[in-house]
Amino acid sequence: MRTRLWIAGIVVVAVAGLAAVGAAPEMKKWQKGKGWGWVWGAQDELGSLNEMTDDSRAAALRLAKQGKVYDLGVLYDRNSYKWPGHSPGEIIAFRTPEGVKRQGDLPALLQDNPSRTAWHSCALFINDNVATQIDGLGHATEGDDDHWYNGFKEKDWGGNWGPRKCDASTIPPVIARGVLIDVAGAQGVDALPPHTAISPGDLEAALQKQGTKLQPGDVVLIRTGTLRHWGETGADHATIGRHDSAGITLEAARWLVAEQGAMLIGSDTSGLEYNPAPEAGKAYREKYGSFMPVHNYLLIEQGVHIGEFHNLEELAREKAYEFCYVACTNKIKGTAAGFTLRPIAIR
Amino acid sequence: MRTRLWIAGIVVVAVAGLAAVGAAPEMKKWQKGKGWGWVWGAQDELGSLNEMTDDSRAAALRLAKQGKVYDLGVLYDRNSYKWPGHSPGEIIAFRTPEGVKRQGDLPALLQDNPSRTAWHSCALFINDNVATQIDGLGHATEGDDDHWYNGFKEKDWGGNWGPRKCDASTIPPVIARGVLIDVAGAQGVDALPPHTAISPGDLEAALQKQGTKLQPGDVVLIRTGTLRHWGETGADHATIGRHDSAGITLEAARWLVAEQGAMLIGSDTSGLEYNPAPEAGKAYREKYGSFMPVHNYLLIEQGVHIGEFHNLEELAREKAYEFCYVACTNKIKGTAAGFTLRPIAIR
Amino acid sequence: MRTRLWIAGIVVVAVAGLAAVGAAPEMKKWQKGKGWGWVWGAQDELGSLNEMTDDSRAAALRLAKQGKVYDLGVLYDRNSYKWPGHSPGEIIAFRTPEGVKRQGDLPALLQDNPSRTAWHSCALFINDNVATQIDGLGHATEGDDDHWYNGFKEKDWGGNWGPRKCDASTIPPVIARGVLIDVAGAQGVDALPPHTAISPGDLEAALQKQGTKLQPGDVVLIRTGTLRHWGETGADHATIGRHDSAGITLEAARWLVAEQGAMLIGSDTSGLEYNPAPEAGKAYREKYGSFMPVHNYLLIEQGVHIGEFHNLEELAREKAYEFCYVACTNKIKGTAAGFTLRPIAIR
Amino acid sequence: MRTRLWIAGIVVVAVAGLAAVGAAPEMKKWQKGKGWGWVWGAQDELGSLNEMTDDSRAAALRLAKQGKVYDLGVLYDRNSYKWPGHSPGEIIAFRTPEGVKRQGDLPALLQDNPSRTAWHSCALFINDNVATQIDGLGHATEGDDDHWYNGFKEKDWGGNWGPRKCDASTIPPVIARGVLIDVAGAQGVDALPPHTAISPGDLEAALQKQGTKLQPGDVVLIRTGTLRHWGETGADHATIGRHDSAGITLEAARWLVAEQGAMLIGSDTSGLEYNPAPEAGKAYREKYGSFMPVHNYLLIEQGVHIGEFHNLEELAREKAYEFCYVACTNKIKGTAAGFTLRPIAIR
Repeated sequence: MRTRLWIAGIVVVAVAGLAAVGAAPEMKKWQKGKGWGWVWGAQDELGSLNEMTDDSRAAALRLAKQGKVYDLGVLYDRNSYKWPGHSPGEIIAFRTPEGVKRQGDLPALLQDNPSRTAWHSCALFINDNVATQIDGLGHATEGDDDHWYNGFKEKDWGGNWGPRKCDASTIPPVIARGVLIDVAGAQGVDALPPHTAISPGDLEAALQKQGTKLQPGDVVLIRTGTLRHWGETGADHATIGRHDSAGITLEAARWLVAEQGAMLIGSDTSGLEYNPAPEAGKAYREKYGSFMPVHNYLLIEQGVHIGEFHNLEELAREKAYEFCYVACTNKIKGTAAGFTLRPIAIR
Repeated sequence: MRTRLWIAGIVVVAVAGLAAVGAAPEMKKWQKGKGWGWVWGAQDELGSLNEMTDDSRAAALRLAKQGKVYDLGVLYDRNSYKWPGHSPGEIIAFRTPEGVKRQGDLPALLQDNPSRTAWHSCALFINDNVATQIDGLGHATEGDDDHWYNGFKEKDWGGNWGPRKCDASTIPPVIARGVLIDVAGAQGVDALPPHTAISPGDLEAALQKQGTKLQPGDVVLIRTGTLRHWGETGADHATIGRHDSAGITLEAARWLVAEQGAMLIGSDTSGLEYNPAPEAGKAYREKYGSFMPVHNYLLIEQGVHIGEFHNLEELAREKAYEFCYVACTNKIKGTAAGFTLRPIAIR
Repeated sequence: MRTRLWIAGIVVVAVAGLAAVGAAPEMKKWQKGKGWGWVWGAQDELGSLNEMTDDSRAAALRLAKQGKVYDLGVLYDRNSYKWPGHSPGEIIAFRTPEGVKRQGDLPALLQDNPSRTAWHSCALFINDNVATQIDGLGHATEGDDDHWYNGFKEKDWGGNWGPRKCDASTIPPVIARGVLIDVAGAQGVDALPPHTAISPGDLEAALQKQGTKLQPGDVVLIRTGTLRHWGETGADHATIGRHDSAGITLEAARWLVAEQGAMLIGSDTSGLEYNPAPEAGKAYREKYGSFMPVHNYLLIEQGVHIGEFHNLEELAREKAYEFCYVACTNKIKGTAAGFTLRPIAIR
Repeated sequence: MRTRLWIAGIVVVAVAGLAAVGAAPEMKKWQKGKGWGWVWGAQDELGSLNEMTDDSRAAALRLAKQGKVYDLGVLYDRNSYKWPGHSPGEIIAFRTPEGVKRQGDLPALLQDNPSRTAWHSCALFINDNVATQIDGLGHATEGDDDHWYNGFKEKDWGGNWGPRKCDASTIPPVIARGVLIDVAGAQGVDALPPHTAISPGDLEAALQKQGTKLQPGDVVLIRTGTLRHWGETGADHATIGRHDSAGITLEAARWLVAEQGAMLIGSDTSGLEYNPAPEAGKAYREKYGSFMPVHNYLLIEQGVHIGEFHNLEELAREKAYEFCYVACTNKIKGTAAGFTLRPIAIR
């Protein structure tokens, strides 16, 4: 027998309606025109995620009225596309039922075992920047002192087992209003062409077309369409690699953070930001001072985490532009990014 | 300015009240006295998690009225306690700012780099059964044919890169009503003594004391208190190891699934189930036919996933016995368990 | 002051002369026209290497009259060419002086350390079939029972940590007369064209041109010229890959073993044997019953180890066709091949 | 038919006799009372091994008159004893015949495969300082500039993938006269007691008892007896660890290098040098300025490589005090030590 009462539906609609009309979380430190920066104290490792409160999370959760879940993670295996500068990955059967029984190296378990019980486990060699990720604030560094967010320096906080400040395990569970900006959809393409630079105007146009408004504290996810080519496990490197170079410009990142208060910015590419064609690379790096100026700005200067390879295809198909975003990184000390994640959007 | 209207609070309370009074999700296949079993079709890899629906998730999310989050994951590093039969773990700095610059092996990035930008990334060698986990339904096997849940056999679905059916990447996002059964709390101890067997009666007594009622479809988390000894990264192997042997008996697992409809069962130990003292091992294995009869019953026979090393300390301290449980496993093909997870309880 | 007496020179020349005129080691089990096979007893893991004796080694060592050493190993790093079916490789700084000091995780060493002493060590993720190798007799299998040399079967001797019979650690130090057959040199090319099939006649022609005679018990090394393209670390995969497909036919392998008594056969390619062009692959496999019939014949049927990626360039340049071959595999239990070796030729 | 002529035996005896009476290689740079030091030029990475010449190798090879080989390597697996500061090791079946066939992920090989051919290969996660080793000259560092042999500094020659000067791949094949100093034997014990400090006098007494004389250019191997406890794979950590603390003092290292001209010094322990008991550690480090002063002296100051975990048991049993030593390190760029080696002694 269904026990849900008719009043529940009415109430949920009412709550959702309230959220939509203006429940933007009040910001603690964000300033319009400036964003955040190193404003959270000398020991801070969280950056803009400090804005989250019980109230802000509760407001985001009220967007999850239907209980419908969108899985934003992509499936990873040894063949999956990744930035070639990262280490490769293997998932290897470490114990198998046959191996366990043939070796007999654990006699205390396998004697007196009438059910013939055994197990599978795997050993992995894997990089912390693969598949669906959230970059920790220690991922990018700059300066001759190799400092990262909040001025943590390599000579003080480096180590052999990953950065000792702002590693990915410091990222708290992220629960916030999520907004999809479907740039590919707005531009009427399956996936943006290689080396597409997404400007503030492109973002505004897409938001306008969608009828979506940003609020300070949002998780903003920008769709290029690259992940329509992920397939099962991202094996088509050539196609993914082509579209993967589309992304936001430094100006777009600034507009999102300083003008709109985006608390976390993600996309469906491996690096979020615009990657110029090889022949334009030198001029670009000279102009912006870095081969990845959006990373420098977001991670180092603003303390804004970056979401990568978030699968936005289903959200786009359903025009689900506003949702509750939930992401929980793996808790591995020293990792530079949360990886092979399964963030979810809930409506 | 706070924009939240006074009516929101009232509405939320009303919704929560409804959930509490009886919004147990209707079960699709569960039968009292029997549980589930291989009832979901020959190709099924989800088991009891098939019971989740938009409605069940929405009901669970309505428990998250305050937006307060409890992080149930434990922090993992090379020194963390784990079952010794698993492979060891290392998190190693793969790229560091100094190394990147000294090697100069990526000239296309590092020339024309006035900001002196660089990065950190790590390579990991890690086991898929460490830290906070959810066992996939392919983890445990039995029989001379080494089959697992739903009759998938090693000769058909084994492989070098992990089981090819019921690997952990098949576990959908879990969003359900969560219930803490604080057995250690009910028995007035910090942590249960070594080799404590938790019986159905122990569970009932604790529930009674808490004033909590189980519902079919619940995620049931059983606290032994072992993780009070985790410290920062689980380095005190001796102490953790002692308490880690406390757990539920096969009878308790049966009561939870067949009588109460528990959809996922977890605890704050590495293996959930009672582990007898060495001198009692042989008799135990002969009686139950396996060195891990609860795993056989839950994973293989019932298709019920197992949660391990879930940190329940904060929930217990706050007597937070009912909550919305959210867990999203890493999406790595072939893994036998989701690992180093950060499930959350939300109230 | 040089202390070597004039008589030494005379004596050494005399010894070398004796070796050259006929000191072929007497064979224990080899039969002309048949070779070896499973003739060494049911527990044997050495195959034809059982032919080595103190006398045969002493005779080989007498070829090393000048003390000149040729390093036959190629340098391996993460970028080195390898067969793509093997796992990738990374050599990662595990401890560095800066990391050790910054982390301070070993206070017992680093306190009271006025010299500021520290260290480097590396962690490696590596495959056992890379760079200069000697295949163990358990590397190749055939039949529905997946047996290898001497009838060892997977169901009996497989395991999760490598084959438990005939792993590479069972290969004894190899000290034997070595003979270079410079096929590329004899054919007047830098490196043999892709998919060159080296026949018995090609080997005989090269030996004739060199004026070299084979003896039973020889280590025979066949030069295709592929490794002229190794460069520092084998980074030019395209060029190496092209030439790497040249190799001996099954007929050539048979001639070497059954007619000439070659005890170990190697070359300067990743797999020794002829690899047909893709369009010829199906017909080839149907004719020979295997995608690697030379491996089946040598490793499984004859118990003759295979040497791979032996760098023969310097030997060829100096027309050093006869020498003392010394190779000692790493002693790692379970490995299917000795890898990243540095065999030497001594004259 | 035996073809070896009677004259060969006579000649070999004559050669060996000559070697014994005084064929010590002439040294290029060694000075009695001083040893070597940074005398080989600013780019040198070989240190004292520069002393090897064709003549010195030929003289050493003449000691190998019988062709009898002693395997000095110990067998390594996941359970083998190692210094706990190094990363752990796993040898894992990467491909197995059953896995290859079940997965069917390489259809081009496995179709048209009537012989049902397949293969084994392994993936390894391993440290470069395990089992039988030769430390590269970049292994130990000192000073605030973290320099190693010849003044190579971390800021110039460090990197993420191991030191870029004096890595183990730069170690040439070592062929030299080897001398065993059986200290345990001379003292009449199976293995030296824990924390035994071997002094110059202990070495002299053992040499005297053996009737052995050192020559400049020797590889000197010092036996503590620790490896009598290695067993198959070094699994008895407690026993090995106890005896492993015996070793030479700084004074003994100086006597060997500066007075005797030892070109490479090794032993049957994991670190060659005396390791004081914990309670004596602070005073020791203060006196000698380092927790491993013998490493500082040999590797950094003198450019003398160190051999570790060389199995000297068989040599000791046979009182084989003089022999031809041959060691060839794996050729892996960046490794700090050659590891899992199989050096040999030949008589």
